[in-house]
Amino acid sequence: MKKFVNDPKQFVPEMLKGIELANPGKVKYVPEFNLIMRADAPKTNKVSIIQGSGSGHEPAHVMVVGPGMLDGACPGDVFAAPPMDYVVGTSKLLNSPKGILHIVNNYSGDRMAFEMATEMLEAEGITVKTLFVDDDVAVQNSTWTVGRRGVAGNFFVMKALGAASEDGASLDDLIALGQQVNAVTRSMGVALTGCTPPAKGKPIFTLADNEIEMGVGIHGEPGRARKPLVSANEIVDEMVDAILTDRKPSADGKTVDPIYGKGSEVALMVNGLGGTPISELYLVYGRAHAQLEKAGVKVWRSYVGEYCTSLEMAGLSITLCKVDDKLKKLLLAPAEIPIRVF
Amino acid sequence: MKKFVNDPKQFVPEMLKGIELANPGKVKYVPEFNLIMRADAPKTNKVSIIQGSGSGHEPAHVMVVGPGMLDGACPGDVFAAPPMDYVVGTSKLLNSPKGILHIVNNYSGDRMAFEMATEMLEAEGITVKTLFVDDDVAVQNSTWTVGRRGVAGNFFVMKALGAASEDGASLDDLIALGQQVNAVTRSMGVALTGCTPPAKGKPIFTLADNEIEMGVGIHGEPGRARKPLVSANEIVDEMVDAILTDRKPSADGKTVDPIYGKGSEVALMVNGLGGTPISELYLVYGRAHAQLEKAGVKVWRSYVGEYCTSLEMAGLSITLCKVDDKLKKLLLAPAEIPIRVF
Repeated sequence: MKKFVNDPKQFVPEMLKGIELANPGKVKYVPEFNLIMRADAPKTNKVSIIQGSGSGHEPAHVMVVGPGMLDGACPGDVFAAPPMDYVVGTSKLLNSPKGILHIVNNYSGDRMAFEMATEMLEAEGITVKTLFVDDDVAVQNSTWTVGRRGVAGNFFVMKALGAASEDGASLDDLIALGQQVNAVTRSMGVALTGCTPPAKGKPIFTLADNEIEMGVGIHGEPGRARKPLVSANEIVDEMVDAILTDRKPSADGKTVDPIYGKGSEVALMVNGLGGTPISELYLVYGRAHAQLEKAGVKVWRSYVGEYCTSLEMAGLSITLCKVDDKLKKLLLAPAEIPIRVF
Repeated sequence: MKKFVNDPKQFVPEMLKGIELANPGKVKYVPEFNLIMRADAPKTNKVSIIQGSGSGHEPAHVMVVGPGMLDGACPGDVFAAPPMDYVVGTSKLLNSPKGILHIVNNYSGDRMAFEMATEMLEAEGITVKTLFVDDDVAVQNSTWTVGRRGVAGNFFVMKALGAASEDGASLDDLIALGQQVNAVTRSMGVALTGCTPPAKGKPIFTLADNEIEMGVGIHGEPGRARKPLVSANEIVDEMVDAILTDRKPSADGKTVDPIYGKGSEVALMVNGLGGTPISELYLVYGRAHAQLEKAGVKVWRSYVGEYCTSLEMAGLSITLCKVDDKLKKLLLAPAEIPIRVF
């Protein structure tokens, strides 16, 4: 796989430098902690929101930093958790009297880095709480995680919390809200190809010319099945069905309930994994939208594009996020981040 | 190449249907002319701006329709000019008392379709003028064109004219403005891979594992040279140099002048061709920005992402657009189109 790269070891720092240069006065790159932060952070009147994760998922998370979204993003190398001491350094730099919220996708390496960092920060009297995101319905446990993986649905969590934090929400409020959004957000992915981390130089997995990986993870983790390529509609139908048939425990814990029942209103995201053109994403969107409406689920708003990628992987994920009036308002609140059209 | 596709013949219509479903009340799909139009068009108080081109370059042009950009986009099949009668039908549907502006990238097929359509429209007393865009510096003539090709720099032309048309500019004003913007906009592309139109089923060209096509066109047209893959920095430097050394005839036609002299201010676009992750685009952006500043050219604003693609081609283009206060204002004016983050 050919790439635009100089020294693979400098791939992430050079990308981060580019983000800073492209957004002068808006975001800042701090090489010491491999950090992208709001240029005006730390803000003392809001909880500081920090997401860390491996690189290779851009725009997540280094390109979604700014008013109304993250205060800072602290990436690791490609597909690797950020070093614990970088999480500590980032958090100290962005510390706010209202506290710090760490958002972490549910992967063992990321959890460990953030849990160790939290211990060290708390020992210094810094207030930190952590929210875990695990929206991927494909499998219950995966290669690098106990429990479900966190994938593109994380965007809705960040957007809601970013907006609420601008409105002055407390750290406890944000944790509660984040858990609510995570609980109504479900994703399912599919890959047509693998992808190649610059420093590795060969694909993390390969698929035959007629194969797909249904339920793939964003680091190429196996999904539910490797199967023959079928039509776009058949692929979409299987993915939408996987999401609609997912269940959550009822309030009394005795039964399991659907998340998206008839009459639910949802945000519908079709997220490209990096190598799939937006033309195909819209074709897929059309089918997913139609299938949801057929199932009695109303689509409130579309999100089509790249939100959480796997380098140049050809593939996509579908995410539903159930919305109510409060969440709609948070999702529509203004935000300003590096990725934009104009 | 695996794709999310049902019937290849329905690839474009199914994408267009998806765009409409994703943007209810904002844009409308008219199957009769394969047209995406503003839902509130035609507007009688502004010139109607229509761009036609082959599909496969999305978001150009069917995803950049809306207030402040295009009034309508009339695509052909993948990499094929729109049928002449669709251009006629689209134009009649969007006719305005202030006239119609056709924006056409300089390819022989597109020019022919629009020129024939113009004759037919004028015969019916409809006022139409055409603006040709030819920003690609790579080659003087190309496979499907006499003169330079029109590529991603077209975005700046559409954005400026879209804003000016909202402000009430006349058809003649828009033609003059469009020619001014086109004259200060220059692009250069590079490919790491070819791409595969759904109905064709095989790549339009292939490159060896260590090869690049420097100066590639957006339909895979040959550029200046097929050469070995080198570092990102070396590739960027060659592209920036190609743009900075391009010349235009002086006012008296006797000499040629640089377009981007020392002290020029520019918008700098790094445009992904479809299969290149945004991480690499930002790495490239960083180098291009630094090289321009070194050459004494000031970067006013960044545009990093996918603006004009070639299906899933891995590659990118760099565009400079020289800005003055008037153009800055037009580029920053509000616009609302299908592609967006939030």
